[in-house]
Amino acid sequence: MAVPARGDVFPVVLCGGSGTRLWPASRKAFPKQFALSFGGQSMFQATLARFAGPDFAPPVIVTNADFRFLVADQAAEAGVTDAQIVLEPAARNTAPAILTAALLLEDQPDALMIVVPSDHLIAGDGTMAEAVRAAATAAREGRLVTFGIRPDRPATGFGYLEFPDRPASGAVAPLKAFVEKPDAATAAKMLTSGRYMWNAGIFLFSVRAILDAFRALAPDLEAPCRAALEKKSLDLGFIRLDATAYEKARSISIDYAVMEKAPNVSALPLDVEWSDLGSWDAVWKVTPRDSAGVASIGPVTAIGCEDTLLRSEDGIQLVGLGLKNIVAVAMRDAVLVADMTQAQRVREVVDALTAKKRKEADEYPRYHRPWGWYETLCLGDRFQVKRIMVKPGGRLSLQSHVHRAEHWVVVQGTAKVTVGEKVTLLTENQSIYVPLGEVHRMENPGKLPMYLIEVQSGSYLGEDDIIRYEDIYQRA
Amino acid sequence: MAVPARGDVFPVVLCGGSGTRLWPASRKAFPKQFALSFGGQSMFQATLARFAGPDFAPPVIVTNADFRFLVADQAAEAGVTDAQIVLEPAARNTAPAILTAALLLEDQPDALMIVVPSDHLIAGDGTMAEAVRAAATAAREGRLVTFGIRPDRPATGFGYLEFPDRPASGAVAPLKAFVEKPDAATAAKMLTSGRYMWNAGIFLFSVRAILDAFRALAPDLEAPCRAALEKKSLDLGFIRLDATAYEKARSISIDYAVMEKAPNVSALPLDVEWSDLGSWDAVWKVTPRDSAGVASIGPVTAIGCEDTLLRSEDGIQLVGLGLKNIVAVAMRDAVLVADMTQAQRVREVVDALTAKKRKEADEYPRYHRPWGWYETLCLGDRFQVKRIMVKPGGRLSLQSHVHRAEHWVVVQGTAKVTVGEKVTLLTENQSIYVPLGEVHRMENPGKLPMYLIEVQSGSYLGEDDIIRYEDIYQRA
Repeated sequence: MAVPARGDVFPVVLCGGSGTRLWPASRKAFPKQFALSFGGQSMFQATLARFAGPDFAPPVIVTNADFRFLVADQAAEAGVTDAQIVLEPAARNTAPAILTAALLLEDQPDALMIVVPSDHLIAGDGTMAEAVRAAATAAREGRLVTFGIRPDRPATGFGYLEFPDRPASGAVAPLKAFVEKPDAATAAKMLTSGRYMWNAGIFLFSVRAILDAFRALAPDLEAPCRAALEKKSLDLGFIRLDATAYEKARSISIDYAVMEKAPNVSALPLDVEWSDLGSWDAVWKVTPRDSAGVASIGPVTAIGCEDTLLRSEDGIQLVGLGLKNIVAVAMRDAVLVADMTQAQRVREVVDALTAKKRKEADEYPRYHRPWGWYETLCLGDRFQVKRIMVKPGGRLSLQSHVHRAEHWVVVQGTAKVTVGEKVTLLTENQSIYVPLGEVHRMENPGKLPMYLIEVQSGSYLGEDDIIRYEDIYQRA
Repeated sequence: MAVPARGDVFPVVLCGGSGTRLWPASRKAFPKQFALSFGGQSMFQATLARFAGPDFAPPVIVTNADFRFLVADQAAEAGVTDAQIVLEPAARNTAPAILTAALLLEDQPDALMIVVPSDHLIAGDGTMAEAVRAAATAAREGRLVTFGIRPDRPATGFGYLEFPDRPASGAVAPLKAFVEKPDAATAAKMLTSGRYMWNAGIFLFSVRAILDAFRALAPDLEAPCRAALEKKSLDLGFIRLDATAYEKARSISIDYAVMEKAPNVSALPLDVEWSDLGSWDAVWKVTPRDSAGVASIGPVTAIGCEDTLLRSEDGIQLVGLGLKNIVAVAMRDAVLVADMTQAQRVREVVDALTAKKRKEADEYPRYHRPWGWYETLCLGDRFQVKRIMVKPGGRLSLQSHVHRAEHWVVVQGTAKVTVGEKVTLLTENQSIYVPLGEVHRMENPGKLPMYLIEVQSGSYLGEDDIIRYEDIYQRA
């Protein structure tokens, strides 16, 4: 294969995570890397932007099959149209994901892979591209380079990298050891010593070096990953790994499988503003705050509050009065109010809601689909009102329902509607009726998003009352 | 006039208040006496229920003209269809309201009036009817009887009644003095002495006695009140006081105008569970709580919370995590999170939102109209989706719009729809289109509420784009 025209550093973006620690803004159906935006782009998009430019090759994105259209859409929106998107049939932690990406790039053994999580925040444009350049020589020499972040507090929630001496920022240094999450006293000592960095889960190595390391240190992983890749199916351009093969891979992190045991590990210490946004107090820390420490996102009013995060979506007016150390997150279907010091217990909230079988535990109020999205505006007895957005070129499956009839009113854009044998073009302010049982389809033939209000009537209004006859997204 | 067949104690229910102290549940457009419900009825309805039965005559309800349909609807729902509803063209505090009610009953000078606010909570069925019986003899002898509530804490937010000795509950006692709201130290001393009761703003007197008292102690009030009543208009059965006349009445409370100066005042001390629900901490106190002091209303989940009120409307899942002394109230358009000790500052919230010109300051997300109600489900660029309920017999005005067209889809019940010259009956799952500029009307000819989804399209979607041709509620 010819040397690529662009740089040969392949960003390998890991975005299979289904973080619930920022519930309700992040949910299983729409996790934080896609849901949380800072400065107009999601964290996943910011990650892509961080590793774009002349040094880099098209990214390899490893994700959960459920997120494939989200990944493709958000990547396209960020201007990335040449990514290879690898779909994991099951979560197997980072080692199999990274090994599979390396196998995908096997015919370019000298190329470099910069492996990055998709849900971390790193301040400063160009910081990471510069860091990659600083680490490239070592990586090209066969070193496995891990990136450390200089700690600004004695955090107990991260693993650490230990250096023989206080390392300088931005230059590759030898690494003494990986250190597990410490207790508070140890973390304080480590902070003082200056020899410890947070392990950010960012790595740079050549394809050859990481394949060699896997073969030497975790030799059982290659066979299932290689088989999953060889038996892959190409589904609308997505690389769908073979489930049977991939599920045989051991679930293990790259740290445990390779890095902690490899003899050729180096580290690049970095002085950057970094956050894993692992809980709401971390979000508070990275959000601009007023002089009283109040961080406001959305339509918010704070009166007499201190050190508080108020985040509102969906146009809800969120008011804080006399609060101290509180996180309040308001969305149309769910509101969280938590003491900031308890923010790491949000997972218990999700567990409690799951136990109550509340859909707000996992589902996001806006449902993302390959053709666009929909949201329920009103659910009543025997009726439901939805707002539907169909992307330009988007096309819902040809379908029918056994239990409901539908009225569609186009409020923006143009819809091409098939009901039975008849095809109609509807524009703003036009409507059509889809009788119960009738085969129908909706598509957006235009160049702008099409918005439509759907009023359903019937005895059963669940999403599973659908018979699909044909689907361009291969869901039939 | 003949002696009424029922008892001759007229409940005079004052419900002109536009309490904002329980924002966002209570707003100017839908204040707490109508908005807050306990055990399935609003506080106004509970007030009516408290003074129903063989002792009582049909109530006289004094309210703000804006609330007339709310009052009539909620009264009818509570089974009260024979009330006299007096509409105040302007708020003038309690003295003119009570004097006007007395003048309305002038031809029954021996009848009694039990004057009560509509937004207080009193526990115990029959408690108040019994209290009225206990005070009736004194009232019939010409005494002005005021009701005192035995305090259970040194509250500084109420005025007090002072007795010569610690009074027994349920028996009329001589009153020594009215006492203004005390400071904390004084309140504590008053609580210890046992001689002080909260002034609950509840009074019992004969029509003759209160008219005599007004003439003796606030003689300027009778002329404007009498003129307002004489020049009243009867509007769909409501007694609408003449604005020019009523506005001339001095704005003053019954306590200042009469009670504090009258020589013939007695008091009835009561040991009842009573609350004026003047702030969210008061609501917390009267709501059932778990062993940690957590009061939950609606779909709420509390994890590790103490002494906290979580109240959710509109189906929103409200979660409290690790909270202490917090009030959180979630509604679809507004969420309040406040420290319980700051709950009395909610008025500042309303002021701040008013300054920001946020509609959530005053408007309620469900708009009550004489024919039913509507709510906005979705407001977008050039379109709006509303859910509309029309009561049986309800009839919207004959109207047209200059800037918008409307689609109507009936989802429950039957609508009689006029568009231009054409009248159509629509049932569940049928729809109709109202072109821009076309004269139209919607009514519910059925016996059950009719629900309809309205999708508006147009360049301007404000409520003021309406030309009314005819209105059975006399709003044209």
